[in-house]
Amino acid sequence: MTNPRKIFLQLAGLLAFVTFLGCLAAKAAPAGPAANIWEVFQQRRSVRKFRPDAVPEADIKKMIDAARLAPTSGNQQPWRFLVIRDRDKINRMKEACVQKALRQFDSGSDKKTSREQFESSVRNQFSGYFSAPVYIVVLTDNRSPYPDYCHWDGPMAAGYLMLAARALGYGTVFITDSIPDSVTKEVLHIPDTYTRVCITPVGIPVEWPESSPKKALDQFIALEAL
Amino acid sequence: MTNPRKIFLQLAGLLAFVTFLGCLAAKAAPAGPAANIWEVFQQRRSVRKFRPDAVPEADIKKMIDAARLAPTSGNQQPWRFLVIRDRDKINRMKEACVQKALRQFDSGSDKKTSREQFESSVRNQFSGYFSAPVYIVVLTDNRSPYPDYCHWDGPMAAGYLMLAARALGYGTVFITDSIPDSVTKEVLHIPDTYTRVCITPVGIPVEWPESSPKKALDQFIALEAL
Repeated sequence: MTNPRKIFLQLAGLLAFVTFLGCLAAKAAPAGPAANIWEVFQQRRSVRKFRPDAVPEADIKKMIDAARLAPTSGNQQPWRFLVIRDRDKINRMKEACVQKALRQFDSGSDKKTSREQFESSVRNQFSGYFSAPVYIVVLTDNRSPYPDYCHWDGPMAAGYLMLAARALGYGTVFITDSIPDSVTKEVLHIPDTYTRVCITPVGIPVEWPESSPKKALDQFIALEAL
Repeated sequence: MTNPRKIFLQLAGLLAFVTFLGCLAAKAAPAGPAANIWEVFQQRRSVRKFRPDAVPEADIKKMIDAARLAPTSGNQQPWRFLVIRDRDKINRMKEACVQKALRQFDSGSDKKTSREQFESSVRNQFSGYFSAPVYIVVLTDNRSPYPDYCHWDGPMAAGYLMLAARALGYGTVFITDSIPDSVTKEVLHIPDTYTRVCITPVGIPVEWPESSPKKALDQFIALEAL
């Protein structure tokens, strides 16, 4: 005969187990394409290590097609997206970054490691950054109608681009200092008529990182007064 | 007896009619909530005239909850979102904008209209801008860890906020000069420790405007070289 108390305990145990599984699933980083905008907001990550799998040109175009729909001052649409897939160019950017870091090391006084150790750690870091099959340099054109407004238009388009990439299942990261402006200018021959917003790798992540710890929502909101 | 040619012609006519209806539907501006990210990218508009319907606080929080997930330098999360629903404050911003425009008119030399005509047109313009039930001032905190990077972090969060608002069925517009920084600073008592990214109304549009004419996708893309 069934014992109601036993059934209750079994159900409670089952519930606890399912909840535990749910927690595990929530902890696991999401992957793959997603079309629901709330999921995409949640699932975008800054990715710094990529699989070499090629990104189809149609996907690159879809990302840029989304990026160009960002808000833009007076509809000026000042953006250019420089797409780099040439491995030789990518490797030259990487080597230029390593050499720049080594020059900084050589001119610095507070050396905590040997030059060899430093070079090894720098090469390792840039191996990740430069492991993607595609790089997109987000630029604004200084000759656009309202160049003083490009500093708003530029990052918004970059933000859209990265959401679109995530929706298609690709990782990105908004890079400024780690791949210096001077390196992209020199290796990719970017003229002074453009301002670089950022450069981002685009590719399938080796793994989707966990989210960085975030402040509580309430810390961002001020109702009626600061 | 059925005449195959007649059936073919009828089907062709039906197809033309359906295509015509499809074109009409495509021309009509989209409205209402949308969760598909590609639709949201396409359907966001700059809206400048709103219905007075209140925006539930849960929706405002959902927008800000999305905005704070934007990429941020060194995870600094430098944002504050000042939410204004107090009609008195909104009207004071509106009047400050009108008075500022009138002072500019008075100090200008090239007057193409009378002061009365100018004031009437300015009041009409600001009636639209200030018709929303909610205003969100997007700010970055100059005391954040990396203030030199806020000019990237700020617009990206604003872009996210506007996408989230559109997903929930609300219109927004990225306002800088039209509601001057000085006006929001003065009326809303924003201290100098913050930098304003923009202010945006949030509300249900009187109508969803057609998209501004956009350049062709290919004009934005540079493959391998500019």
